[in-house]
Amino acid sequence: MRTPLIVLNFKTYIEATGKKAYELSKTCEYVSKEYGVEIAVAPQTVDIPMMEGLDIPLLAQHIDPIKPGSNTGSILLEALKEAGITGTLINHSEKRLEIADIDFLVKRCREFKLENVVCTNTVEVSRAISALSPDFIAIEPPELIGTGIPVSKADPEIVENSVKAVREIDPEVIVLCGAGISTNEDVIAALKLGSKGVLLASGIVKAKDQREALKNLVEGINEL
Amino acid sequence: MRTPLIVLNFKTYIEATGKKAYELSKTCEYVSKEYGVEIAVAPQTVDIPMMEGLDIPLLAQHIDPIKPGSNTGSILLEALKEAGITGTLINHSEKRLEIADIDFLVKRCREFKLENVVCTNTVEVSRAISALSPDFIAIEPPELIGTGIPVSKADPEIVENSVKAVREIDPEVIVLCGAGISTNEDVIAALKLGSKGVLLASGIVKAKDQREALKNLVEGINEL
Amino acid sequence: MRTPLIVLNFKTYIEATGKKAYELSKTCEYVSKEYGVEIAVAPQTVDIPMMEGLDIPLLAQHIDPIKPGSNTGSILLEALKEAGITGTLINHSEKRLEIADIDFLVKRCREFKLENVVCTNTVEVSRAISALSPDFIAIEPPELIGTGIPVSKADPEIVENSVKAVREIDPEVIVLCGAGISTNEDVIAALKLGSKGVLLASGIVKAKDQREALKNLVEGINEL
Amino acid sequence: MRTPLIVLNFKTYIEATGKKAYELSKTCEYVSKEYGVEIAVAPQTVDIPMMEGLDIPLLAQHIDPIKPGSNTGSILLEALKEAGITGTLINHSEKRLEIADIDFLVKRCREFKLENVVCTNTVEVSRAISALSPDFIAIEPPELIGTGIPVSKADPEIVENSVKAVREIDPEVIVLCGAGISTNEDVIAALKLGSKGVLLASGIVKAKDQREALKNLVEGINEL
Repeated sequence: MRTPLIVLNFKTYIEATGKKAYELSKTCEYVSKEYGVEIAVAPQTVDIPMMEGLDIPLLAQHIDPIKPGSNTGSILLEALKEAGITGTLINHSEKRLEIADIDFLVKRCREFKLENVVCTNTVEVSRAISALSPDFIAIEPPELIGTGIPVSKADPEIVENSVKAVREIDPEVIVLCGAGISTNEDVIAALKLGSKGVLLASGIVKAKDQREALKNLVEGINEL
Repeated sequence: MRTPLIVLNFKTYIEATGKKAYELSKTCEYVSKEYGVEIAVAPQTVDIPMMEGLDIPLLAQHIDPIKPGSNTGSILLEALKEAGITGTLINHSEKRLEIADIDFLVKRCREFKLENVVCTNTVEVSRAISALSPDFIAIEPPELIGTGIPVSKADPEIVENSVKAVREIDPEVIVLCGAGISTNEDVIAALKLGSKGVLLASGIVKAKDQREALKNLVEGINEL
Repeated sequence: MRTPLIVLNFKTYIEATGKKAYELSKTCEYVSKEYGVEIAVAPQTVDIPMMEGLDIPLLAQHIDPIKPGSNTGSILLEALKEAGITGTLINHSEKRLEIADIDFLVKRCREFKLENVVCTNTVEVSRAISALSPDFIAIEPPELIGTGIPVSKADPEIVENSVKAVREIDPEVIVLCGAGISTNEDVIAALKLGSKGVLLASGIVKAKDQREALKNLVEGINEL
Repeated sequence: MRTPLIVLNFKTYIEATGKKAYELSKTCEYVSKEYGVEIAVAPQTVDIPMMEGLDIPLLAQHIDPIKPGSNTGSILLEALKEAGITGTLINHSEKRLEIADIDFLVKRCREFKLENVVCTNTVEVSRAISALSPDFIAIEPPELIGTGIPVSKADPEIVENSVKAVREIDPEVIVLCGAGISTNEDVIAALKLGSKGVLLASGIVKAKDQREALKNLVEGINEL
């Protein structure tokens, strides 16, 4: 995925479920083309197949740390890949994983050529995860998620220090940030702190006019 | 769902993933029509949308005990319902749930008119679950799953006693049984023990010729 | 344990950790003798051995669903029994268990002659658990825990209906109730609703004067 | 803890429960003095208080990632510290933790001056964990645990490469290794690969003569 990068997490919001997930993805595709900004979408597992033909990156929200076999109810990488994903979130704060499983999934993504975005919650965890050489790290202080208080304002040091810590361990890992992001100003602040993009959800998904909110969000960020 | 009932769990077997999941479902539909036997399929979450138009019951393997909201990576009932499921497995031994969550999910299924099949592992657990009045209970001793040793032979008393225990608590709950079932003889034995159908997976999914295995499985069971 | 029964859960409150756990247990023993009311204590695992010689029931807060073996970091029934417990809580809302594991633990308690108190959160779950024939059920709506709003006032029907539901399934199972209980009035209301005692924590543990709070709590409840 | 270091994990083996845990700890203390070799013991939570007065390092097998509060059934650092532990294992393969929780616990150990040994399962996870700067890392390929096939023979590269990877990230972190270790030869091989000690369990706990097994184990390792 190119940077600056916007990753939109649909979570299990009803405003981004089923047909509404499809419409929101098409909105993201439209805005992405119009503004030339890279936008990736992460819909629910069951809504992934309907995104067929979508011309922007398509991420899973989670993959279970398993191989094919007797795992009733689990989410299998091979099935998601066949359904069209180009990458996945890993270790979101609402679906945290054991370190052994993050290692397993990063390796599996590499094997299957899926881009991976591993979420972290502290500078130290960002440091640790960068040692696994994922493609992206998204630092998100969980206490800010869904608050509307942007991490770029509430805790700028966590972004700056994560960028620095990751660079020391593996400079090829790209750092995003998230939590509380909803406006153009928030994104710009995040980029100025050294991150290469944002991970967000409710700020767009729950906006009265998702398209307008998204247009506002990305305006001018390529010029930074 | 009508009885006698065959529920085929696709698990995350590679032989029942993606296009192969679709073909196996069509095979089930074909055999169901030809033999007049009720067969339900339970594919992986991401493979559910491709079953559109399938004319047999379509079950999820698992639903997470959540409502719409901030639940990244979780499996939401509303999304599955919109994608076409008619029911779901709950508490499979490979995806066991807390009792509070089984209660929550049985109530949610009732509200959304989804048929539910709650898996149990002992006579006592069958008794307990029947007090929640699910539509179906599937008793499956986990130590027999995937062995090819049918519960109907290895532990006939667990089936008979579950049937009896459930009848005492709520006679409207229908009892299925599973674990190690792969042949027509196994199904007939299960029905003779008082169950109204079977839950099975590898016996069919991993058969060299899935269609033949399925035909063999259901032959004559409506005449019992 | 005799009824009416007061079960005091120490949780991991710092006011009931280490030496303070011992002092609080001695306070419970003293008040129990003075008022002739049955009071059981449930301290943290590591604080159980220091209760040696205590002359009131001593409960674990949780036991893991395991047998002796390779289970690093788990809590083993045999070890707790040797350390002096007379019983245990099971499935507290802060440590919920899968139904298969509750079944396993109730049977293990029976085998080792340990009294068990299984916590439930709805009338339906109380019904279901009573089918496993535990010694006690403690119905605790989790949304009231720690609020100071007693279940006996906020949701009297959940207590009455649990008592009724349990009686239909297994009349030998004794029903307690909990959540928000802190005063004598709350306990009396709970008993009048048909429960045989209460499960409580912060109301006593965090009281300025634990002894006075406890004396107040139990006063006159044997006369009901 | 000094190196070379032997850490003996009692797990929930019945041969190392209750009084037997005490005797085994005294055996470790005796052998430690006699041979001048550092031996640390990790008994079950409930058996920690009886180790009072023991003159060798005393580790918990696990601590829950919580602070004092409403956490029924959890294992609290403050309670273990008051009971006498000098350190703890973290993230054993039988009690794996989310990365955010490992970070939390390493920081809490530092704050409470408890030595910590974080278990890892691959070279990459060792690298990642070393970025959190724990005191010790114990690399243990889970597939070898309890087999009697020593990691130092079956997979010498995982030890050597972990030592190298950790040194690059934080040279102050000390690397131990484990899994399948039971003889003096295994320990010596482990030390020659660059580790500074071993983590073991069944090889000693389940030995017919624990004292003899332990003496044999440590003989001459200080001379390397």
